[in-house]
Amino acid sequence: VSESVVSAPAFGVAATARGPRVVARTASTVVDVGALADRGSVSDGWWQQGTLDDFLAAGRTAWQQVTGEIATTDHDPADPAVLEPDGLRLLMPFSVGDYVDFYCSEQHATNLGRILRPGQDPLSPNWRHMPIGYHGRSGTIVVSGTPVRRPRGQRRPDPASPPVFGPTERLDVEVEVAYVVGVPSPQGEPVSVVDFADHVFGVCLLNDWSARDIQLWEGQPLGPFLGKSFATSISPWLVPLDRLSEALIPVPSHHAPVLPYLVETSPAGLDLSLSLAINDTVVSRPPYSSMFWSPAQMLAHMTVNGASLRTGDVYASGTVSGDAPDTWGSLAELSQMGTRPVRLEDGTERTFLEDGDEVVISATAPGPDGTVLRLGEVRGTVVPALG
Amino acid sequence: VSESVVSAPAFGVAATARGPRVVARTASTVVDVGALADRGSVSDGWWQQGTLDDFLAAGRTAWQQVTGEIATTDHDPADPAVLEPDGLRLLMPFSVGDYVDFYCSEQHATNLGRILRPGQDPLSPNWRHMPIGYHGRSGTIVVSGTPVRRPRGQRRPDPASPPVFGPTERLDVEVEVAYVVGVPSPQGEPVSVVDFADHVFGVCLLNDWSARDIQLWEGQPLGPFLGKSFATSISPWLVPLDRLSEALIPVPSHHAPVLPYLVETSPAGLDLSLSLAINDTVVSRPPYSSMFWSPAQMLAHMTVNGASLRTGDVYASGTVSGDAPDTWGSLAELSQMGTRPVRLEDGTERTFLEDGDEVVISATAPGPDGTVLRLGEVRGTVVPALG
Repeated sequence: VSESVVSAPAFGVAATARGPRVVARTASTVVDVGALADRGSVSDGWWQQGTLDDFLAAGRTAWQQVTGEIATTDHDPADPAVLEPDGLRLLMPFSVGDYVDFYCSEQHATNLGRILRPGQDPLSPNWRHMPIGYHGRSGTIVVSGTPVRRPRGQRRPDPASPPVFGPTERLDVEVEVAYVVGVPSPQGEPVSVVDFADHVFGVCLLNDWSARDIQLWEGQPLGPFLGKSFATSISPWLVPLDRLSEALIPVPSHHAPVLPYLVETSPAGLDLSLSLAINDTVVSRPPYSSMFWSPAQMLAHMTVNGASLRTGDVYASGTVSGDAPDTWGSLAELSQMGTRPVRLEDGTERTFLEDGDEVVISATAPGPDGTVLRLGEVRGTVVPALG
Repeated sequence: VSESVVSAPAFGVAATARGPRVVARTASTVVDVGALADRGSVSDGWWQQGTLDDFLAAGRTAWQQVTGEIATTDHDPADPAVLEPDGLRLLMPFSVGDYVDFYCSEQHATNLGRILRPGQDPLSPNWRHMPIGYHGRSGTIVVSGTPVRRPRGQRRPDPASPPVFGPTERLDVEVEVAYVVGVPSPQGEPVSVVDFADHVFGVCLLNDWSARDIQLWEGQPLGPFLGKSFATSISPWLVPLDRLSEALIPVPSHHAPVLPYLVETSPAGLDLSLSLAINDTVVSRPPYSSMFWSPAQMLAHMTVNGASLRTGDVYASGTVSGDAPDTWGSLAELSQMGTRPVRLEDGTERTFLEDGDEVVISATAPGPDGTVLRLGEVRGTVVPALG
């Protein structure tokens, strides 16, 4: 690891002796934001609840001001506002409103289409015209570190026989990037691509745990449901989008003939380098730069019908998969739905996850002055199904 | 209307000079529950917030106790706790958690399958094995009376040409019954069919507004999204399930070979008689008794993978459609996707909704002593799309 790799500025919530507290991460340390506000070093008004909810709703001017104030505050390790990063327990940082999961990687959609609908065109006819998405379960979004119980459910391994019930045999991960809405919008009024930065606070990483056998049997005609809704994990640190300006790049859909409400006039994709590790073996390095639709396009599409936004709404990119097989963001793709095992460094092989497996998704982004910014990681361990 | 038709006991929230107040509806009047509690006529502890959230979370013993106390309280019209029902403005009565929409009418699923996927088996192979469902947008659930703006979006009327953008030309309704969760459940622990009544407080009516052209173009491979997420309307009165015991009937799935977690051992369907009116013309009378899956089966399925419940979670039945064409619960079915107009009493015809149309869904249920209980109605008027 080069010395120029530093933590991205980010906000979260930590368990402390004083209860849950809003904390900020700088390049070198973690600070209690309310303690800084109490002494006048940081603007005040959003730190009392022990969640980021009030700060998310405060809007872009406040986001920029506070982020700048924290960056320029002198953090002495002996300062009681500075928290010991080792052993810091980070909590779910905000209250989730709605959760939407998109499907913005052309390679992932193609890979999954080939596996799930063999013989048909792998990309549905609408795919290049809109960011395809669906609503997920917001009540089962959990913070990194929360154990994930293997779900049980219906699957039909033999298409000629009735379905069977039991623990999923195809527990999978999906490497994703998620966007967190700060400023709400009224019902009936779409939010355009150019208003994206006024509404969306920041970014985190997301693991869209998936039970492929349950998903396959239930998925028609209304889409994913119990194959996804048992758990979705997010990283505990929200990185303000304003701090990722060096990562901005054009998205592939800039060159596609899209309808006017989806046209981007400036670079709006993110050049994030993702990594998926199972039990400390990195099994994939998905490039977020390959995503066809930008987060602003996803937001504009999600609201073009007049759907309102609430503080805490989360929307995710869908699995990130690049062109090369070692950049695919799910085991379904990496193992070709169980037919080509993935080798781990301990000599064992995986097609899908086993009980006890620990999954870690991490990411970096280009930062200012040639630095590399490390985003928060999202971590989770599989615990056995109910007996 | 027979004299034995009375309002079902129900809870809601009304706008008053004192702010939003929890109110209860009896057979003959509406009372301010907090005012009754202040004088000791009703149990106290859940009436301060101006929403039903605290009472929903209180659990079945409290639900039964309060419902009984209100039923046996003497309501003198001169009592300041009694509210004038005329002109009472009812508000959104609780904070919505997650929203799931099921698809439990065999006739509706068959009708829609024939229309949307001609040439294929109209019922997907999984349909008789599980209550098919998907997550909808909880942030756009609105209370009865809220105007609904015609959504805009992508559709592709000519499959040989690119999609076009504009107001939906196929704005539809779906007649549904919804269930509201009171008592939460922890992540990782399924809620069985027998525990249904300990978790679900009550029932309301729901209009799942749908833009069929948007839905058709976006719907594959991940299901409904913007064709539904612009608005979902619910009736303002929640009727406690304990007060609908005379309406309990067996569901058709009692006789189907379902997996053990979906087996019902007692009558768990509801014999509700629904009605759909457009501009005061009743265009359909869907029988809820025809629904294949019970609300307890929907709940057991929704949580069998370990998905948690939160107070305020809403799940809906899906469109209710009986066998006869005049019992179908959507215009897509009633007009055969626009090919067979429906005649209104003013002499006009509808295939789909026009701007200014008012839609009212209402319902009755068998009550005690030969009475008929009227549930709350859900009402909404279509306003023109953004220009």
